[in-house]
Amino acid sequence: MQTLAQTARAIRDGEITAEAATEAALHALEDHVRPLNGIARLTPDAALESARSVDLSRAKGASLPPLAGVPMAHKDLFYRAGRPSHCGTKIRDNFVPDVTATVLSRLDGAGAIDLGTLHMAEIAMSPTGFNEHHGHGLNPWNPAHICGGSSSGSGIAVSAGAVTASLGTDTGGSVRHPAAACGLTGLKPTHGAVSLAGVMPLSGSLDCVGPLCHTALDVALIMDVIGGEDRADPTTAWAPFPEYTQTLADGAHGLKIARPRGYYDCELDPEVENTLAEALATFVSIKVTLSETRLEQMDLINAFAHLVLSSEASSLHRRLLADRPDDYAAQVRARIEPGLAYPATHYIEALTRRGALAKDWIMRALQDADAALLPVFPTPVPTIMETTEGGDAAVSAVIGRLTRNTRGINYLGLPAVVVPCGISASGLPIAFQLVGRPWSEPILLRLADAYQRVTHWHDLRPERPTP
Amino acid sequence: MQTLAQTARAIRDGEITAEAATEAALHALEDHVRPLNGIARLTPDAALESARSVDLSRAKGASLPPLAGVPMAHKDLFYRAGRPSHCGTKIRDNFVPDVTATVLSRLDGAGAIDLGTLHMAEIAMSPTGFNEHHGHGLNPWNPAHICGGSSSGSGIAVSAGAVTASLGTDTGGSVRHPAAACGLTGLKPTHGAVSLAGVMPLSGSLDCVGPLCHTALDVALIMDVIGGEDRADPTTAWAPFPEYTQTLADGAHGLKIARPRGYYDCELDPEVENTLAEALATFVSIKVTLSETRLEQMDLINAFAHLVLSSEASSLHRRLLADRPDDYAAQVRARIEPGLAYPATHYIEALTRRGALAKDWIMRALQDADAALLPVFPTPVPTIMETTEGGDAAVSAVIGRLTRNTRGINYLGLPAVVVPCGISASGLPIAFQLVGRPWSEPILLRLADAYQRVTHWHDLRPERPTP
Repeated sequence: MQTLAQTARAIRDGEITAEAATEAALHALEDHVRPLNGIARLTPDAALESARSVDLSRAKGASLPPLAGVPMAHKDLFYRAGRPSHCGTKIRDNFVPDVTATVLSRLDGAGAIDLGTLHMAEIAMSPTGFNEHHGHGLNPWNPAHICGGSSSGSGIAVSAGAVTASLGTDTGGSVRHPAAACGLTGLKPTHGAVSLAGVMPLSGSLDCVGPLCHTALDVALIMDVIGGEDRADPTTAWAPFPEYTQTLADGAHGLKIARPRGYYDCELDPEVENTLAEALATFVSIKVTLSETRLEQMDLINAFAHLVLSSEASSLHRRLLADRPDDYAAQVRARIEPGLAYPATHYIEALTRRGALAKDWIMRALQDADAALLPVFPTPVPTIMETTEGGDAAVSAVIGRLTRNTRGINYLGLPAVVVPCGISASGLPIAFQLVGRPWSEPILLRLADAYQRVTHWHDLRPERPTP
Repeated sequence: MQTLAQTARAIRDGEITAEAATEAALHALEDHVRPLNGIARLTPDAALESARSVDLSRAKGASLPPLAGVPMAHKDLFYRAGRPSHCGTKIRDNFVPDVTATVLSRLDGAGAIDLGTLHMAEIAMSPTGFNEHHGHGLNPWNPAHICGGSSSGSGIAVSAGAVTASLGTDTGGSVRHPAAACGLTGLKPTHGAVSLAGVMPLSGSLDCVGPLCHTALDVALIMDVIGGEDRADPTTAWAPFPEYTQTLADGAHGLKIARPRGYYDCELDPEVENTLAEALATFVSIKVTLSETRLEQMDLINAFAHLVLSSEASSLHRRLLADRPDDYAAQVRARIEPGLAYPATHYIEALTRRGALAKDWIMRALQDADAALLPVFPTPVPTIMETTEGGDAAVSAVIGRLTRNTRGINYLGLPAVVVPCGISASGLPIAFQLVGRPWSEPILLRLADAYQRVTHWHDLRPERPTP
């Protein structure tokens, strides 16, 4: 069972029961994901009961919903009523939500099996998978390397082959970092495309829910289920939403990709640069048109991204930061406490200028192209040690470097899909991201799907580490 | 032609032409409103041309839209493409918008005639009608008294009988103050009920567009036209909206009014208190049920209202406050400059807690009632001198007192209708406001309409001052 699409079909066709698929996934989580710190809390009894009910429906000849019986597990910040949601932090140790996230309800409705919750960075604030309380998330490709964060467990569990899909959240890159580091396809949708109701808030203006899977097709299958307007989240879009999977059939022929020069070349490792050049050549081979654009400055956009994130996060955590400072890792405190000092006028200005700055970015970086192809990390996936040693300033510089190509996109509200496109000399995945206009997820997924039809990077799996 | 409903009917029935009604209104504006500083800029040629086209349609037997030929004039902050909109301030002296406010487009579509723009407080920041650059707006009932602001010209023009309806805006009471001071019926709708597109922003979280008219029926006629979702303003509500006028037929029998004791009794002048008691007795006589509730504290709500207003206003004006400080009146600067100092976290907290504080206010002030009956001003309408003398601290105290019963309602986002209910010993109108749950405008208007069917306060007109 390699992918979500294959698993769903096998269950529908009776090649495997939902119960057997669920048992296999639970075993794989215990055997291959828990040793990598990828698990928060599993709920095997509930999962097996749901799976058996799918099998019963099928036996009765009932028509099955699209994801019937497919085992999944998600980042530990999607609420399910009555189930603890620790959000990677000690301040949530006693938190049991009384609501269920809209995205979980929608996956339930589509027949997916929820196995439990996965490791994440403390309050979703780390691009590396760092968690002082629960241990580092370890990369299935090589546990000495970061797995990416903050949706660290999602990256680990899908990459390790335990589940075929997992929901993460992306406030500054937190779906894209683990997707890139673990060799997965991950989508950060347009802000407003997926409901945030029942999801731990970090920065409501930037937070996005998105899936991590092996393929663009699998991402589209998830988006078909979770996307679209939700009355419980007034920031979701009014517009009726496309069937993501249907648009994939349109292919990528005639679409246009821009490669913005300037800002996104800075600090770019030659190994990553060469791999991106090969990916561009592949796109040319499938009749995608390339162009070069220029975008020199991201200073204001990055500053506003930081201002909005730290203002909103520190507002949410202000009382607890004062009452229980030691319950936060120093690294996390250092990243949100600056938000306590920013003036309201600057915050309001950051939100007010968002539309115009997005328009400007699109005009420069995309010009008339459909998507910009950008690096995710500017370097091959670093080791955990490289992201933790050298003191506060060094750690802060590493975090800044790892998020330099992602966090501005959240401020701009644009969609981005991460696609694996190579393996570094160190044996870790390399990825690119395609960033498009608001609501252009279908186009980004068409490009990613077309690329994956002629490449094999998304099919590579890490060797399972010796237990 | 006493009211909007009567004027619309007279034009429809051919008792008067739209052109004659427009000419009469233009003369009345010049003769009775301009001497009270009520006018910004009239556009008689365009108005008469529109009026003649209504008359032509009628002559051809075309079916007329609901407000066909009714002359109106609005606060000088509703944009019409190509027409200056000075917003009561020197910083807009050269401002000519290139868009038309959705509410003006909707009134155009309903056949209303736009005569031009009316006096307003500088950038809509005064409850009295004070404008250092254009002179005080003067009350038609007695020009020594304030007319209320910031929609000062709207209050003057309708009260003086020149037009039967005028749009104002209400960020902290700016529709309700002139309605109360000039003896008019005015509505501050639920935040999100009326589009703000093409309206000068002061504080987007608090700004509301609302009509000033003689009667609740006239207010409902305007709301039928201007209310409801507008794609140009994403803060407008999704929900389909009621026909406001149709609900009036339901009457008020069986509705419930609460009189919250505590906060709203403080600083309450006995003359106002007695008048409100008489209004309550009138409601009893028409089978409305009364109850007493208690609400002691409005400190946090008022502080948040101030924080949101001054943060958003100072963000909008930050550069101009620095570059052209002398183009602002000292009184206006003093009210928005505090916003430059507030932290983003407090601003975010003020917005985040809004829903819960509104729920709490409703549970305490309304309990199971449909509306709370509150004073607008806590005293009879003061003289201009009483609101300007004594130095900054005294002026600030007066402004705080005049807005104490209104500005919290904007923060809570609730609808409020102002209804005239008496005349003070000084010969000025006294009014109450009915405040309801979100989206309960139809209920508030039913109560106001039922009250006006058995009282005459809304029929009283000031004697026209000797020119």
